[in-house]
Amino acid sequence: MAPIRFELIRTDGAARLGRIRTRRGDIETPAFMPVATQGSVKSLSPSDLRAAGAQIILANTYHLSLRPGHGLVRELGGLHGFMGWDGPILTDSGGFQVFSLTKLRKVSEEGVEFRSHLDGSLHFLSPETCVEIQQALGVDIIHPLDECLAQPATPTDTERSLALTLRWLARSVAAHRKGDGSQALFGIVQGGIHEDLRRRAVEATVALGLDGYAIGGLAVGEPTERMYDITALVAHLLPRDHPRYLMGVGKPHDLVEAVARGVDLFDCVMPTRNARNGQVFTADGPLTISHSRYARDPAPLEAGCPCEGCRGFSRAYLRHLFMARELLAYRLLSLHNVTFYLGLMAAMRRALAAGGFRAFRSRFLDRYGVESHDGSPDSTRDTEA
Amino acid sequence: MAPIRFELIRTDGAARLGRIRTRRGDIETPAFMPVATQGSVKSLSPSDLRAAGAQIILANTYHLSLRPGHGLVRELGGLHGFMGWDGPILTDSGGFQVFSLTKLRKVSEEGVEFRSHLDGSLHFLSPETCVEIQQALGVDIIHPLDECLAQPATPTDTERSLALTLRWLARSVAAHRKGDGSQALFGIVQGGIHEDLRRRAVEATVALGLDGYAIGGLAVGEPTERMYDITALVAHLLPRDHPRYLMGVGKPHDLVEAVARGVDLFDCVMPTRNARNGQVFTADGPLTISHSRYARDPAPLEAGCPCEGCRGFSRAYLRHLFMARELLAYRLLSLHNVTFYLGLMAAMRRALAAGGFRAFRSRFLDRYGVESHDGSPDSTRDTEA
Repeated sequence: MAPIRFELIRTDGAARLGRIRTRRGDIETPAFMPVATQGSVKSLSPSDLRAAGAQIILANTYHLSLRPGHGLVRELGGLHGFMGWDGPILTDSGGFQVFSLTKLRKVSEEGVEFRSHLDGSLHFLSPETCVEIQQALGVDIIHPLDECLAQPATPTDTERSLALTLRWLARSVAAHRKGDGSQALFGIVQGGIHEDLRRRAVEATVALGLDGYAIGGLAVGEPTERMYDITALVAHLLPRDHPRYLMGVGKPHDLVEAVARGVDLFDCVMPTRNARNGQVFTADGPLTISHSRYARDPAPLEAGCPCEGCRGFSRAYLRHLFMARELLAYRLLSLHNVTFYLGLMAAMRRALAAGGFRAFRSRFLDRYGVESHDGSPDSTRDTEA
Repeated sequence: MAPIRFELIRTDGAARLGRIRTRRGDIETPAFMPVATQGSVKSLSPSDLRAAGAQIILANTYHLSLRPGHGLVRELGGLHGFMGWDGPILTDSGGFQVFSLTKLRKVSEEGVEFRSHLDGSLHFLSPETCVEIQQALGVDIIHPLDECLAQPATPTDTERSLALTLRWLARSVAAHRKGDGSQALFGIVQGGIHEDLRRRAVEATVALGLDGYAIGGLAVGEPTERMYDITALVAHLLPRDHPRYLMGVGKPHDLVEAVARGVDLFDCVMPTRNARNGQVFTADGPLTISHSRYARDPAPLEAGCPCEGCRGFSRAYLRHLFMARELLAYRLLSLHNVTFYLGLMAAMRRALAAGGFRAFRSRFLDRYGVESHDGSPDSTRDTEA
């Protein structure tokens, strides 16, 4: 039996309503995955995540392999047992982190040598060890090692990099086949901002018949419009019967725009990181809780929001906590933002189920305050260390 | 009707089982009050506190009057409404903080001028304004401004200071009488480590017929044995029919020793502050979660503990969170320590109810690893800013 099954329930233009079935529960799509970089969605407990409506979370292979180490995680029951989350978990390959967080990297055909961002110790990651680490973590959906090219990159560099990523992919598939069959393997489509390379990447990746497909290498500084276009192109080329995951994206309106272009799965550190910086997401756009206009505001962050922060506390109190650097502020604002993101996905699914996604999208963007893609650089993709 | 009523249920030697009735709920004594210095028990929400078994919390007049300001708190429903805690709240007078946190203090008959530890701004606190601030906060039990003398102090200085504290107390009582009668006023017994001055302090304070009596000026660096002796003396002199509160104490074994000497109420920042430093309280004594011996330990912090940290997570995972500086570590360790403190009080109450406090005390101290008072300086009293 396949480790995951994707059911396409309904489409509305390119947008898709679906369901990913896993042995640890169903994921209604389009879905957002809160990010548990180090095995914890920052400041939130598994019960907080359930209360917020999370059906799947993402963890970072790179971080966990360095600390506490994947061997230790395996010994303590795999990542699910270790962190107390019994729902599905997806891990990235660590490629993005190796190429964005570490120094003194040496990329070879064999893999990539790098120094840990924690202590400078030397490590080597190959497509095979990358799969082995994710097997030790025991998660539900894993990813192959890919090269994440610094942007902007020339077409020639991008082509060379894509070829390496594809050769690594073939080795990852072989390593994955040696596993027990309990984990799904997604392919990562690279190719930068070059349409022809993206087409070639899709063709070569899909030829391997993987369980799902990630769109990588976006939200790393390119103009938003370009990100949307590449997303639309790749999603259009991918097979209908597998989930599509846009890595590291993004802002609330990015999620709506990407769903409109056929994406099913998302992850991003924005809801938690921005919460810790005092930025609160609401349907009327983001608000900055430290602003003096909230000092005596008895209203909740967002009327009608079911999160613990909105049910029990005023903006005035949350602003006080934030100004006084009380840890409770980070938790309650994070809980709100994650609840907002997951609520947005649920609202998109309801609109898709009712055949009203187009109207939802325009209503949402209008109220949120985004009229059109402004072409400003977008770099939501990052890890949260 | 009196704002609070104390019921003495049973005694066992000097130890007392009782109940403080307030319009916001009963407090079973002996009781421990988690400390919400700035209107938040650090990292915990009101529902966390309820889950841990808290029946009353303490907040700091000094901190709240400076930030966000008592006027703002009153405007937003008083401290109960502001912070979302509907149980009883006790505030200290701010005297301890003015004398321990601020610089450039000027003490006069009228009151004390000081500079804020936040921004250096100049403030003046008199017995009357101190009562007014606590009225604005709308809490259930308030305290009069007292002078907290730096230790060690000469008998002459202590006597002079006590006389001022007593004159301030008379003014506080007059200011309190102008209130709406909804708040209880405790007296604070000062007098340093001098038995004759403590006797005089008790006499003069009790003569005013207050709702309860706090024992101040201890746990500020004096030998533990001396702290116990002064506590025993003062508790012995205080009337039986009112609650006795030992301010800012202390370590788990201090609570047991002070209950044995007739104390009913406690507060201390240790459970939360020490949690943030990785110290975890258990019946077998404290453990340091960062220790490598816990790296692969699948056991909970303490077997049988009902807190969220112990129900869902291993020491290995909590150690990982702590080493990785994940915010969830601070919350779960704080929740455990507060649960431990409140559980210890509940265990003492059960032992008192069953007439077995003496056996409980010796069993607890034996297992906890404290054989006798070691005479080492003790300074658990502090605020948590």
